[in-house]
Amino acid sequence: MKYLDLFSQRTTVRSYSDRTLSTADLDSLLKAASHAPTTGNMQLCTAVVTRERNEIELLAPYHFNQPCLHTAQAVITFCADVYRFERWCAVSNAKPDFRNLQSLLASFFDATIFAQQFCTLAELNGLGTCYLGTTTYNAAPIAKSLNLPEGVIPVLTVTVGYPAELTQTDAGRLPAEAVVHHSSYRHYTDSEICALYKEKESRPDSQQFIKDNNKETLAQVFTDIRYPGKTSDPFSVAFADFLNNAGFKGFESYSNE
Amino acid sequence: MKYLDLFSQRTTVRSYSDRTLSTADLDSLLKAASHAPTTGNMQLCTAVVTRERNEIELLAPYHFNQPCLHTAQAVITFCADVYRFERWCAVSNAKPDFRNLQSLLASFFDATIFAQQFCTLAELNGLGTCYLGTTTYNAAPIAKSLNLPEGVIPVLTVTVGYPAELTQTDAGRLPAEAVVHHSSYRHYTDSEICALYKEKESRPDSQQFIKDNNKETLAQVFTDIRYPGKTSDPFSVAFADFLNNAGFKGFESYSNE
Repeated sequence: MKYLDLFSQRTTVRSYSDRTLSTADLDSLLKAASHAPTTGNMQLCTAVVTRERNEIELLAPYHFNQPCLHTAQAVITFCADVYRFERWCAVSNAKPDFRNLQSLLASFFDATIFAQQFCTLAELNGLGTCYLGTTTYNAAPIAKSLNLPEGVIPVLTVTVGYPAELTQTDAGRLPAEAVVHHSSYRHYTDSEICALYKEKESRPDSQQFIKDNNKETLAQVFTDIRYPGKTSDPFSVAFADFLNNAGFKGFESYSNE
Repeated sequence: MKYLDLFSQRTTVRSYSDRTLSTADLDSLLKAASHAPTTGNMQLCTAVVTRERNEIELLAPYHFNQPCLHTAQAVITFCADVYRFERWCAVSNAKPDFRNLQSLLASFFDATIFAQQFCTLAELNGLGTCYLGTTTYNAAPIAKSLNLPEGVIPVLTVTVGYPAELTQTDAGRLPAEAVVHHSSYRHYTDSEICALYKEKESRPDSQQFIKDNNKETLAQVFTDIRYPGKTSDPFSVAFADFLNNAGFKGFESYSNE
């Protein structure tokens, strides 16, 4: 098997040089990436490109001003999009019923595959990328900022630019046997779980992370500092409200809790 | 920009030769693909590999016996997985609160990116792949069949094998300007929408598709035959029930409608 180091050698790039990424080059990458596998050949996805510095700065607070935004050559908001397909139906004497959970999932998958194909092509061309997982936290204001119609849902944002420096750091992934199961899911014993996470926990950067956050274990940094329920819950409600307001069935209950 | 034909030349492969894909090669691809970008470095995803013919045949009905299953060298079910992370928290004196919509979304994105990286590497090595969008239709029975614990959600299935024949067919994607917007979303006029879909509609295979389904327009084939609400709705309820039963907050209302 070839190309096995294509992804294992990659690293997220959060700081970019001032080397220009031309609009023509960016458009070429996006066009090439748009030939992505898609549910039923429906292409329920859209990329919105933000390049002007002032427009990027308008988006920055919704992504908690992550530093990668400030040096990026472009910020691309990948969206789940049932709107365009519905518009086509409307001019084609067809009555769509796509505001349901299954169509929503299809559009999430389409948007994510499109985003990942873009990142792969960008990185093959010497660019660096960083995913912003904050997009779904602030979907409503991002949608407003980008003038998205109802039915277009921002799901993943990617910053892109030429790397400021080549930082070839190992990201500290789990061993493959943790994420690949054969025939059926291998339910873990406590000691098996400990073994799978041992290398990750013992890394110097993990140990520093625990110390910096004044915690006992690496897992506590995730549960208490980075992803506590009290933080996730209001963002979950906000995203469900956004979907509910866009007419997606089944997202009323979050709002009513 | 290089490698621009990497994805535009790809095509979904639904029929495979009897050439063996060795377990070692498949594991190498999965391992390499597992170094994927992931939310907060949490890797909320898992791949379950099904290779035995009898085990593939057990999964086949849940995917409506799509032909690609019957000649595939392997069927890989990519899952959103908060369970493994929670198990790690449990042995690390940490209290996770991950059964919410935001963590669910993160796990969907992680699983999809993992799946797409696998497909890219497989195709670079001469293999063919096909995504099965039916996975979320029958998440509960697939989860049971693969012995998935609560918190592991099958989201995308990929069949893989060496192509039976090289069918380099253009998939009929929209022009890039349909899926890429600059600065803000370009709201379409009716004539703009018609123009974007014109080439797709006028393709001979689209015209045949309309005729075979006894419809007036291509959009009607999607709305009336392939993805009507009356088909999607029960599958949406079933998936929401599956999430609700696994303790994910906010999915009660689907069940109660």
